[in-house]
Amino acid sequence: MHKGRLEAFSDGVMAVIITIMVLEFKLPKGNTLQDLIPLLPTLISYIISFVFIGIYWNNHHHMFQLVEKVNGKTLWANHHLLFWLSLIPFVTNWMNDNSFSKWPVILYGFILLLCGVAYYILSKALLKASSENERLERALGQDQKGILSMVIYLIGIGLGFVNPLFSLACYVTVAIIWFIPDKRVEKVVFSEEKER
Amino acid sequence: MHKGRLEAFSDGVMAVIITIMVLEFKLPKGNTLQDLIPLLPTLISYIISFVFIGIYWNNHHHMFQLVEKVNGKTLWANHHLLFWLSLIPFVTNWMNDNSFSKWPVILYGFILLLCGVAYYILSKALLKASSENERLERALGQDQKGILSMVIYLIGIGLGFVNPLFSLACYVTVAIIWFIPDKRVEKVVFSEEKER
Amino acid sequence: MHKGRLEAFSDGVMAVIITIMVLEFKLPKGNTLQDLIPLLPTLISYIISFVFIGIYWNNHHHMFQLVEKVNGKTLWANHHLLFWLSLIPFVTNWMNDNSFSKWPVILYGFILLLCGVAYYILSKALLKASSENERLERALGQDQKGILSMVIYLIGIGLGFVNPLFSLACYVTVAIIWFIPDKRVEKVVFSEEKER
Amino acid sequence: MHKGRLEAFSDGVMAVIITIMVLEFKLPKGNTLQDLIPLLPTLISYIISFVFIGIYWNNHHHMFQLVEKVNGKTLWANHHLLFWLSLIPFVTNWMNDNSFSKWPVILYGFILLLCGVAYYILSKALLKASSENERLERALGQDQKGILSMVIYLIGIGLGFVNPLFSLACYVTVAIIWFIPDKRVEKVVFSEEKER
Repeated sequence: MHKGRLEAFSDGVMAVIITIMVLEFKLPKGNTLQDLIPLLPTLISYIISFVFIGIYWNNHHHMFQLVEKVNGKTLWANHHLLFWLSLIPFVTNWMNDNSFSKWPVILYGFILLLCGVAYYILSKALLKASSENERLERALGQDQKGILSMVIYLIGIGLGFVNPLFSLACYVTVAIIWFIPDKRVEKVVFSEEKER
Repeated sequence: MHKGRLEAFSDGVMAVIITIMVLEFKLPKGNTLQDLIPLLPTLISYIISFVFIGIYWNNHHHMFQLVEKVNGKTLWANHHLLFWLSLIPFVTNWMNDNSFSKWPVILYGFILLLCGVAYYILSKALLKASSENERLERALGQDQKGILSMVIYLIGIGLGFVNPLFSLACYVTVAIIWFIPDKRVEKVVFSEEKER
Repeated sequence: MHKGRLEAFSDGVMAVIITIMVLEFKLPKGNTLQDLIPLLPTLISYIISFVFIGIYWNNHHHMFQLVEKVNGKTLWANHHLLFWLSLIPFVTNWMNDNSFSKWPVILYGFILLLCGVAYYILSKALLKASSENERLERALGQDQKGILSMVIYLIGIGLGFVNPLFSLACYVTVAIIWFIPDKRVEKVVFSEEKER
Repeated sequence: MHKGRLEAFSDGVMAVIITIMVLEFKLPKGNTLQDLIPLLPTLISYIISFVFIGIYWNNHHHMFQLVEKVNGKTLWANHHLLFWLSLIPFVTNWMNDNSFSKWPVILYGFILLLCGVAYYILSKALLKASSENERLERALGQDQKGILSMVIYLIGIGLGFVNPLFSLACYVTVAIIWFIPDKRVEKVVFSEEKER
């Protein structure tokens, strides 16, 4: 099976997800600059979610460049990832509607964690489907960033019971780890491993 | 006529269908974990519909890999399928809004049945359009799963008059039949035919 | 300039247009079969609009298969077509919200007419951009169907002042003209011209 | 990295942005022609925003035809552009909801300005990523139109404090500059530079 349509469908779903979040921007009640202030939590949570969808799209794009063939299992692993990503607009909305209070922020982290897990499962399914693809194996072998992200999500979820702002700090940390160009992060965080 | 744009358009429509369903997740009234409980029917019906759209996308993707050319009739057979699929968000919404009561669940099954019929018509139209395509003929010849699904939908619609939960069980059964990797199901269900 | 992205963008816009119309299906007030009856005008107008978008997509798809290159003017001619098509969900909604009363039905026909005009302009722009493309010229030279459609739209708009149902009959007539496989219609309607 | 998926994802996001704006057309309260009059600001602002998204899509399309490879930085520069474009439906909506009053019109210009800046950053990132691409360098070297647009946006934002209609005139001027076929504008506006 060719990978073209799987990429096209994923692009479509992620494009819709990233854009429908903007429908949550409720109209300000007046027409002055101050009327925009209540929208700040919406803007902040929109930016965070936009960046996360962007990160997933980038990684999906990178990973599939090395993929040659897909099978039935990888289609479902991909749908599974898209399912959790599709819940991001909902949790984003709940979070900003409650000005980043405890449970919404924890649920947001939980969904991010499940997106991470789904991405991990997808990468393993792709590896299994093309067992002789050395380039893919080498690229995905260095998945310390993925595992590190999941650990930080878990810490973030735990810290939510103390203060939701700590959770947000954790989620933003994950975003920064992925945002900074790959090689440098790897040099900084995983320099020991490379020295071996 | 090339099939590329028909695939791209279908991908786009299915991507929008699968994603706009998430707009139905109404914001919880509070910010606690308990406030999420009333959303459970929404989540369950969303998962079921997400899986069904996923199944149709997978099958569409499989079938069109064997297709070489399309004609005017297949374009309309494809629009016909997309039409019934596009009603899934509406019936999903009605069903979860009424906590899986009788008529909404029956209508849901009815729309699933019509999607199945439309898919069947599409496959026949594709076969007719490329009458010398042996690979497609062989692949579509084994459409016992499609016919079995339609029978189970009909049973589910009937059982809805007894108890809507029985209907849901039928619909989920169909999803499972398609979800399990093809070959195994075929071995189990249609082993007799293969022995001939 | 290649035509690939213009096709992809048009597919995306038409896929979103055709699908967001379903967001207009308001939830029935109850959970019985009778509660669906007030949705009948919505369903009828949805079907009509779905078919029209389908027709435009099919024709767009046909026409661009013969196109080899596009230029700046054709990009804008295409945006112009997408603009009028994007208003179809709005006029559909107004029409069904007023149970097919006079002005909404007339406006609906007016938007359909402008879509037809925009499509005509696009076809002329494509012809001009590829002046040596004989196949395109031959295909678009036989645009009697397009002109006939515009005439029927105008009649439909006029008849709306008598009875909106007459207008709807005209619009449906246009849809049928395009729906029936091309060659037969051409044989029936334009047989004289072919005899020359 | 190939540019195909970046183009596909951008097409998807821009297709959704351009189409969801139509969801803001509120249903007229009655069914007469007069009931459409209150929708005029919505229509005008929709047309302006539709044209701007169209311009960005055209330019994106032009620019990427000369691009051969993309890297991680260009992916983020592209997401950055899509982010600001995705806010256009919101500011359009605020502007038409307040009948083009001061602050909404200024914010609209501000978002347009940031789209322009993001596009400029993207073009520089693409140039850097393919430093030996002479055709791209030559095409992007003549970015006087981009800089001129940003200057006019700034003037428009400033004039908003005097009269929002002056701002709108500025924004429309920018649209016209891009709308008129490239070469002629360049001849008129930048004839001096070309004479050197």
